[in-house]
Amino acid sequence: MTSEELFRNIKRKTSFLCVGLDTDFNKIPKALLDKPYPVFEFNKRIIDATEDLVVAYKPNLAFYESLGAAGWISLEMTVNYVRKNFPDIFLIADAKRGDIGNTSSMYANAFFRNLEFDAVTLSPYMGRDSIQPYLEYTNKWSIVLGLTSNAGSRDFQQKKTSEKKFLFEDVITTVKEWGTENNTMFVVGATKAEQFKSIRKIIPDHFILVPGIGAQGGSLEDVFLSGYNDRCGLLVNVSRSIIYADVTNRFEISARQKAIEYRDQMENLLLRTGLI
Amino acid sequence: MTSEELFRNIKRKTSFLCVGLDTDFNKIPKALLDKPYPVFEFNKRIIDATEDLVVAYKPNLAFYESLGAAGWISLEMTVNYVRKNFPDIFLIADAKRGDIGNTSSMYANAFFRNLEFDAVTLSPYMGRDSIQPYLEYTNKWSIVLGLTSNAGSRDFQQKKTSEKKFLFEDVITTVKEWGTENNTMFVVGATKAEQFKSIRKIIPDHFILVPGIGAQGGSLEDVFLSGYNDRCGLLVNVSRSIIYADVTNRFEISARQKAIEYRDQMENLLLRTGLI
Repeated sequence: MTSEELFRNIKRKTSFLCVGLDTDFNKIPKALLDKPYPVFEFNKRIIDATEDLVVAYKPNLAFYESLGAAGWISLEMTVNYVRKNFPDIFLIADAKRGDIGNTSSMYANAFFRNLEFDAVTLSPYMGRDSIQPYLEYTNKWSIVLGLTSNAGSRDFQQKKTSEKKFLFEDVITTVKEWGTENNTMFVVGATKAEQFKSIRKIIPDHFILVPGIGAQGGSLEDVFLSGYNDRCGLLVNVSRSIIYADVTNRFEISARQKAIEYRDQMENLLLRTGLI
Repeated sequence: MTSEELFRNIKRKTSFLCVGLDTDFNKIPKALLDKPYPVFEFNKRIIDATEDLVVAYKPNLAFYESLGAAGWISLEMTVNYVRKNFPDIFLIADAKRGDIGNTSSMYANAFFRNLEFDAVTLSPYMGRDSIQPYLEYTNKWSIVLGLTSNAGSRDFQQKKTSEKKFLFEDVITTVKEWGTENNTMFVVGATKAEQFKSIRKIIPDHFILVPGIGAQGGSLEDVFLSGYNDRCGLLVNVSRSIIYADVTNRFEISARQKAIEYRDQMENLLLRTGLI
């Protein structure tokens, strides 16, 4: 998917919402546990209930790997279900990988070819040859960690370099040269709204994936008004406060309700700024 | 396993060799492809042929994930095979994970509880709360990227911070405070032998996992003499030049021969420095 197609989907759905499928086996309703792949069943019901309100889903690999091979099968079933039924959805593997070139090629094969994700999240610590193999795929995206939403972002990302920039600024400035705004995005946490303006000076045209709304406490309006560009330029992820809005077997009704609330806020922001 | 137990194994086997199980489905002998889990069969034969010569194995997750659920099953079978038959082996999940706390807890569960690895490799970019959940397990190890062996290590790891240190020095100095020398190691590439002396000033007592010998070109002797400590303090990983020493169906004989060569070099170095 190109950034133009992604923006078209955002305008059509009046939403830049990404739902994080951090599906925890221990939190899904007991009624699903009789199914052969309960995590897939949960995801399917979340997807069916929200697909018209979102532009992206983002399964978090850790939640699937913690279930071993059965988890991996649930992940495959989820990706295939979306690909078959909702081809316009942008699918992100939240994997935060980062390794030497031949290993990165293997991960790229896993996420882009076998699983048909559109994008994968990557950690920049190992540098260019750890990112390059992902950029070699046409119509696929590398979403590189810039400034994350967690407390630990202070430890290294917000350290000053000898050029008196923050490390995350150096990362974004350097990594943007390796790809284009049609194959590279950056992760910037919603808890760092005050940093969006300076980040936009470095990457005016790139999409930014924004976690940290909802359970982690970031403000959607602050993030949007500091971070949007003329193609929206933001995918805002919400995980727990949508998928666990209700833990009974009626969970998808509450998930849809929550997603509608986010979509309505997003529609309002897109209207206020003249993007739709 | 404690660092004392690891050192005891090193002395007993006169080896600090770790074999990287970067098992590529496309490189294993055709004769194995009839088996239900060819990657496991390959690993089993490598392990049987080398277990008396090594102290550790390090499966690289990318190679298993690129095969989907079948790859994950091969990984489980490999870990279970080692655990059952060779309980003294130190097992490293080369995963290079790094995510927010609740996600890290899921990965820790996947690698330490379900799969019974002793250690997992981690990327430090997201800071303390991305590492902490792994450190909460007793007798398990976090192996954090310091200075890696690839060309891309120049891009960020070797950037100077405002305190005129390299970023990797800042990472090692900071991360060592989060754990102890009994639950934390660092990755330092063999291609950076000139850096081992300054790194040893920061972490005199920690174990260091050293990739980059063999296919990547680092020198075992240079690394050892610059980096060893009074408990050896080094695990040197070799992957491709052992497991693909021969690509015929007699591969394990050549793999054993290569592993003997490394063990003999290591034994010699341990003798020269009075560690055995």
